[in-house]
Amino acid sequence: MAEAKVLSGAGLRGQIAGQTALCTVGKTGAGLTYRGYDVRELAAECDFEEVAYLLFYGELPNTQQLTDYKSRLKTMRDLPQALKEVLERIPASAHPMDVMRTGSSVLGTLEPELSFDQQRDVAERLMAAFPAIMCYWYRFTHDGVRINCSSDEETLGGHFLALLHDKKPSDLHVKVMNVSLILYAEHEFNASTFTARVCASTLSDLYSCVTGAIGSLRGPLHGGANEAAMDMIEQWKSPEEAREAILGMLERKDKIMGFGHAIYSVSDPRNEVIKVWAEKLADEVGDTVLYPVSVAVDETMWEQKKLFPNADFYHASAYHFMGIPTKLFTPIFVCSRVTGWASHVFEQRSNNRIIRPSAEYIGPEQRKVVPIAQR
Amino acid sequence: MAEAKVLSGAGLRGQIAGQTALCTVGKTGAGLTYRGYDVRELAAECDFEEVAYLLFYGELPNTQQLTDYKSRLKTMRDLPQALKEVLERIPASAHPMDVMRTGSSVLGTLEPELSFDQQRDVAERLMAAFPAIMCYWYRFTHDGVRINCSSDEETLGGHFLALLHDKKPSDLHVKVMNVSLILYAEHEFNASTFTARVCASTLSDLYSCVTGAIGSLRGPLHGGANEAAMDMIEQWKSPEEAREAILGMLERKDKIMGFGHAIYSVSDPRNEVIKVWAEKLADEVGDTVLYPVSVAVDETMWEQKKLFPNADFYHASAYHFMGIPTKLFTPIFVCSRVTGWASHVFEQRSNNRIIRPSAEYIGPEQRKVVPIAQR
Ligand SMILES: CC(C)(COP(=O)(O)OP(=O)(O)OC[C@H]1O[C@@H](n2cnc3c(N)ncnc32)[C@H](O)[C@@H]1OP(=O)(O)O)[C@@H](O)C(=O)NCCC(=O)NCCS
Ligand SMILES: CC(C)(COP(=O)(O)OP(=O)(O)OC[C@H]1O[C@@H](n2cnc3c(N)ncnc32)[C@H](O)[C@@H]1OP(=O)(O)O)[C@@H](O)C(=O)NCCC(=O)NCCS
Repeated sequence: MAEAKVLSGAGLRGQIAGQTALCTVGKTGAGLTYRGYDVRELAAECDFEEVAYLLFYGELPNTQQLTDYKSRLKTMRDLPQALKEVLERIPASAHPMDVMRTGSSVLGTLEPELSFDQQRDVAERLMAAFPAIMCYWYRFTHDGVRINCSSDEETLGGHFLALLHDKKPSDLHVKVMNVSLILYAEHEFNASTFTARVCASTLSDLYSCVTGAIGSLRGPLHGGANEAAMDMIEQWKSPEEAREAILGMLERKDKIMGFGHAIYSVSDPRNEVIKVWAEKLADEVGDTVLYPVSVAVDETMWEQKKLFPNADFYHASAYHFMGIPTKLFTPIFVCSRVTGWASHVFEQRSNNRIIRPSAEYIGPEQRKVVPIAQR
Repeated sequence: MAEAKVLSGAGLRGQIAGQTALCTVGKTGAGLTYRGYDVRELAAECDFEEVAYLLFYGELPNTQQLTDYKSRLKTMRDLPQALKEVLERIPASAHPMDVMRTGSSVLGTLEPELSFDQQRDVAERLMAAFPAIMCYWYRFTHDGVRINCSSDEETLGGHFLALLHDKKPSDLHVKVMNVSLILYAEHEFNASTFTARVCASTLSDLYSCVTGAIGSLRGPLHGGANEAAMDMIEQWKSPEEAREAILGMLERKDKIMGFGHAIYSVSDPRNEVIKVWAEKLADEVGDTVLYPVSVAVDETMWEQKKLFPNADFYHASAYHFMGIPTKLFTPIFVCSRVTGWASHVFEQRSNNRIIRPSAEYIGPEQRKVVPIAQR
């Protein structure tokens, strides 16, 4: 073997591992773009379904295309009976990300991707089905009901809220879900997307890629951060208490969940968007604690460490104000990011070489096996 | 963001993505070592359980340690009732790798890894349970029986054969399974192991890492190659027919499954070991077609392209001679490689930074969102 090259950064930080036409992260003048569009503009002007269409088909849809697309996705929301029966066997105590991972894997056994020609259909099926996977399990194990997995809601975000709360969601909540799903849809070679691409590079099926990506997103250093941020901020009763606690955590060198980023160095463009909506929701529910506490944490982190909130931090309070249980925060991320994952899989497949890096060996010298009787 | 470095090789080939003390691949003078031991020596002198112990604990066990270890693993073989009920809901037509992926994911909901202190227990549980996951599903959906998932067999390989065939396996077959499991146990930063490490780098749980790795191993460019090789060689009735067919495939630039390797350039050290056992098994069953056909393919590939069989090629005929259905070939690989995957996860966790590379952007320039009515 030729001598392998040692990379400068751990975690492949700053190393190019492939090409993409989907996204830029941290390019000067544009914090985050999807196929050339600034995510802030997309979040202000589009439905999540437009963004999914953009990622999957390359261009934003026109009115007719969007209407057709939404109707088609609507027909794909219900779950096969066998999948429901599996979800009923997962205990209430399970981590909901393990439910999503299992749901994706089981659907892959029931409706397999038999050829790469089906890849977009499979991606859309998964996207449409994820809210039901999450809510069927949640409502069955927590409320003891077998919900109807269809709804009249036009958007995925509205559909999710309808299944979760068993009532028509408000326009404000549908709007916020929409924005949130757009912000989370795609983010270049983050750890879960990179997982999907490594899997795709073996020419495995799309369900395997998405199942693997869910497992990676689950980690607290990645998607799990929105839940961890919620668990943290809800402990504090006032901005003063929050500030004190953060100072102590920083002193102890604890990681503060929802802050910092592997690529962005001064701010996360998704934060300014979701923060505005979190504040609107705080007003709506008359909150006087959680939002002020969040702001205090935000200010203290900047003042002390020049660390800024990433996409996850204000998502915590925003979701909370809409009555979403904390443990479902990361699964919502799945409902959105499946669009990015799948688009990356399509891209990897279209110009593939198996992703197989090398390692620097730091283990024992070569040695002889000592017969077991003499060990 | 600092300018990212462009890597010379696609697929991160030849790039160092981290450190390991577990394995060397293709180092001069030693084709493949596990913790310093040549895999050929391990395959000649050890049980698979000794190798699993070596990977998990760092040293080969002595007699007492090995006896205790085997007894402990034996107690971990049976499956929870809920998992059996899930397996019964996966159709007979499913890809068995999707069954393994689902089994791993479901077990993670039933017996979660609540803290990294449990990591070795979880790894051993998965290793002990995988033969039952595969065989319970297979025998239920193909033979209509609910098997007993325990057996008196001392080794994992013997246990697997006992569950599959519902009778005590011969010593020769137990020996070959043992050798096979040792050869497949660990292989540095191959695509499935790298998947497990990327997942681990988010600090996700071990079930997520293994579930993701199974999805990657499923791909035909990776573990799926042993099945693909079998499907290919069993089409041919004679060495002459095989040779002709291979010449045609090479002419058409088809990939021949079971040949070539991302790292090895002249031979795969695992091949010389499994080839000897494939020949012994051919003798045992009185084969006069499959083994000679395999040899003809092997010779033609070397003569025409200087491509050599990798670990997968003679595994195909070896497994076939032991009466193992072709579609279970890659799942056996899972039963073994889970030791390597888990050991890499432990290593990643002990010195972690999130694995998050960058991408070279080749998409559209920045553009403005056109209002939907004007598209
Ligand atoms: C996102 C994250 C994983 C990026 O990791 P990374 O690129 O490896 O960055 P590093 O961990 O090297 O961070 C650089 C420095 O800032 C510190 N830092 C980074 N994020 C921090 C945080 N959230 N809280 C406290 N300190 C932090 C690191 O400890 C490190 O300090 P050091 O140089 O003294 O060791 C990291 O910022 C983090 O763990 N954040 C919290 C989890 C989170 O919110 N994840 C969601 C991301 S969208
Ligand atoms: C293992 C494998 C994925 C390694 O991939 P890689 O490192 O990217 O190697 P490359 O594909 O660049 O191979 C180099 C050259 O040999 C050729 N080659 C490699 N393996 C080949 C095979 N099995 N059959 C025919 N040609 C092969 C490639 O086409 C390429 O030729 P080119 O330079 O004219 O394009 C590849 O050899 C392969 O696909 N093998 C078949 C699948 C298999 O057995 N996998 C199990 C591995 S343990």
